[in-house]
Amino acid sequence: MSVTAAQGFTAAGIAAGIKENGSADLALVVNTGPRSAAAGVFTSNRVKAAPVVWSEQVLKGGAVSAVVLNSGGANACTGPLGFQDTHATAEKAAEVLGHSAGEVAIASTGLIGLRLPMDKLLPGVERAAAELTPHGGEKAAIAIKTTDSVHKTAVVTQDGWTVGGMAKGAGMLAPGLATMLVVLTTDADLPSADLDPALRAATRTTFDRIDSDGCMSTNDTVLLLASGASGIVPETGAFAEAVRTVCADLARQLIGDAEGASKDIRIEVVGAASEDDAVEVGRSIARNNLLKCAIHGEDPNWGRVLSAIGTTSAVFEPDQLNVAINDVWVCKNGSVGEDRELVDMRYREVRITADLAAGTESAVIWANDLTADYVHENSAYSS
Amino acid sequence: MSVTAAQGFTAAGIAAGIKENGSADLALVVNTGPRSAAAGVFTSNRVKAAPVVWSEQVLKGGAVSAVVLNSGGANACTGPLGFQDTHATAEKAAEVLGHSAGEVAIASTGLIGLRLPMDKLLPGVERAAAELTPHGGEKAAIAIKTTDSVHKTAVVTQDGWTVGGMAKGAGMLAPGLATMLVVLTTDADLPSADLDPALRAATRTTFDRIDSDGCMSTNDTVLLLASGASGIVPETGAFAEAVRTVCADLARQLIGDAEGASKDIRIEVVGAASEDDAVEVGRSIARNNLLKCAIHGEDPNWGRVLSAIGTTSAVFEPDQLNVAINDVWVCKNGSVGEDRELVDMRYREVRITADLAAGTESAVIWANDLTADYVHENSAYSS
Repeated sequence: MSVTAAQGFTAAGIAAGIKENGSADLALVVNTGPRSAAAGVFTSNRVKAAPVVWSEQVLKGGAVSAVVLNSGGANACTGPLGFQDTHATAEKAAEVLGHSAGEVAIASTGLIGLRLPMDKLLPGVERAAAELTPHGGEKAAIAIKTTDSVHKTAVVTQDGWTVGGMAKGAGMLAPGLATMLVVLTTDADLPSADLDPALRAATRTTFDRIDSDGCMSTNDTVLLLASGASGIVPETGAFAEAVRTVCADLARQLIGDAEGASKDIRIEVVGAASEDDAVEVGRSIARNNLLKCAIHGEDPNWGRVLSAIGTTSAVFEPDQLNVAINDVWVCKNGSVGEDRELVDMRYREVRITADLAAGTESAVIWANDLTADYVHENSAYSS
Repeated sequence: MSVTAAQGFTAAGIAAGIKENGSADLALVVNTGPRSAAAGVFTSNRVKAAPVVWSEQVLKGGAVSAVVLNSGGANACTGPLGFQDTHATAEKAAEVLGHSAGEVAIASTGLIGLRLPMDKLLPGVERAAAELTPHGGEKAAIAIKTTDSVHKTAVVTQDGWTVGGMAKGAGMLAPGLATMLVVLTTDADLPSADLDPALRAATRTTFDRIDSDGCMSTNDTVLLLASGASGIVPETGAFAEAVRTVCADLARQLIGDAEGASKDIRIEVVGAASEDDAVEVGRSIARNNLLKCAIHGEDPNWGRVLSAIGTTSAVFEPDQLNVAINDVWVCKNGSVGEDRELVDMRYREVRITADLAAGTESAVIWANDLTADYVHENSAYSS
C-alpha cells in the first residue's frame, strides 16, 4: 500500500541511527519506470530548508527517479554546510541506485537548526537501497514519522491505475503548506506536464486548507511521481479527482493526529462573495486561540467566531452574520440565535458553519483545538 | 491617582450587581471642567460592540463629560436591543449628572453575546454618581477588571500638569487595539484637536504593539479626556511624550498580567528596511504558537523565530538573518550561532532580538508565552 500501491515503485524504511531512540528514520522511494515523471509543491515559507531548495531544483528537471526522506532532523537553517549534506545524500543515492543525482529528491523533517549526522545517514541510504521491495510502502511511511502517533497512507484505484501515498505531519500545520512530507505515486502513464496541474489543484483545496496551529514550516514537501507502469493514460479529470481524493484523505489524517489535539474542527464558510473571502475567514477562525480553547472546553462560544471574522477584509455586514456550531445556529444576524445549550460537543469532530450572507462561494478549512497537551508537547520538544 | 490624578476629574467604582459574584463592576469618570475636550481610539475589529459604535459617535462631537464603564458583559453582538441598552445607559448618566447624553461615552467588557442586566446597571449609574469623589480613581480602576489579577494605573506629572490613567485587559490582547478599556485624563488646557494626534501617536507604538494571544477584541476603547483645570497649555511634544509614557506603562502592565502567562516576551526587530517591515515581523514572531510554547519551556528555539520571519513579506535574505535570545546570538547568518546553552531563561522577561540585516528601522512588540494555564482559563471562561 502507501507509495508502493501503484505499480512501478519500490520502497524501504529503516532505522539509520539519525534518531537517538533507535526508531525508523530513513525512507527511500524509487520509481522503477518505465517513466520517471514528477511534480512537486513546496512550502511558501521564505526560510526554506536545504532539502527544499535542492528538491525544487530537481523538480525543474521534470524527472524524479528516487526520493530519500529522513526524520530526526529538518536540515533547516544549517547554512552552506547543510546544503552540502543534502547534496551528498543525493549523490550517495544516485551512486547506489545507478541514477543521476539530479533525479533524486530529498525531504527532511525534525528539529530546525541542527546538522544531520551524515556518518549515520549515508550508510543508511545504502542499507535502505538493499531493502527496497515492491511492498515497502508501509515501512517507508513509518520511517518518516516525527511526533506522529500513527503513520498515514491512502490509496485510490480505478480502471487499472492507482494513486497512493504517504504523509507525515502532526504539528506546525498551516496553509502554505502545512508541515508535512507527502509522497504520492501513480502508475498512470502521464508526463510531468500533466502531473503538475493535478497536484497543484489537489493541494490547493486539501493540504493548503488544514491549519493545526497557524505555524508554517520550513520543510513542507509534496511530491507526485508517475511510473507509467500501468500503461494506462487516464482521463485528466478522473486523474485529478483521484489525486485530490488521496490528498484529502491524508490531510484529514494529519488533522486527526495533530499534536495534543482533542478536537478536529471543520470550519465551513458559506455565503461568501468570493472563494478567497471564504478562505480568509476560515483561516482567521482556524487560528483564533481563544476560540480553539473554547472548543477544547466544549463551549459553543460563537462570540469568538464573530470576533475572528471581524478581523478579516472579507465582504460582510456584521449584523447579517450567522454561525452554527454542530448545526445549531447559535448566532443569527450578528446576535444571539438558537439556545447554545442545544449544542452537543462531546465528540471529537466539531463543525462550525459561518454564513457571511454576502454571496454564494464557500470553503472548508480544518483545524484543531488548543490544549494543555499541545503546550506540554511543544514546550519540551527540543529539550 | 489613576484617572483622578489630574485636576478636574471625579470618579467612582461600585458593585452594581452585573457580575454574579458581587465584585465591583461599574465605573464612572466625570470631567468637571472647565473644558470637556476628548479624543478616542477604538478597535479596528469590524464586529464592534454597541458601546464602541455609540462612543465613536460621541467622540465625533469632540466633547466628553463622562464615561460609564462596566465589566461583567461586553454588550457585543447583541443586536439593536443591545445598542438601545447602551443608549439608555448614556441617557441615565446624562440625567443624573446634568449633561447631554451626547457627551457620555460608554465602554463595556466581558462576555460577547449577552445582554446586560439593565435592571442592575441603571440603578448602579445613580449610585456611582452619588459616590463620585476626586479620589475615586483607584476604585474606578478596580471596577473595570475582568480576568485581570490586578488593576492597572499610571501617572506622569510635570510642570504643573498631569496625565493619568487606568486600564483593564488580560486576554484577547492583540494589535488593533488589544482587548482593553483605557481611560486617560489630563488637566492640561488643550482642545480635542490637540488631544487626538497625541493619543493616536501614543497608541500606535504602545497598545498597538502588544500581542498577548493574537486575538482582536470587539470592545477596545482608549479615551483621553482633558479638563483644562491646571490652566496650563503644555508644549505639544512634551504633552505627546507624557501621553506616550502613560500608555507604554499601562501596556506593559497589561502584558505583565496576561491570562495564564508565565513569560513576558519583548521582541525587538532591528535592521529592518522600514518600520512597517519591523512591525510585521515582530507580530509574526509574537503570534507563533510553537515559539510561544518553546519560550514557556525556557527553550531558546531560534528555529521557530526564523520560521515565523519566513512567513512575512518583509525585506530580508534568509542567510543574513540574526537572532538573539536574552542577548545571546543563537542564530547568525540564518544558521547556528552562539551556544544555546548560554541562554538564561529563568526570569519572567525574555528578550528576542531579530536582525533582518536589511536597513536601519526597528520596532518593539510585547507578547506572552503560551501556557497550559492560558488553555485552562480560556476553555472554561464562559461555562
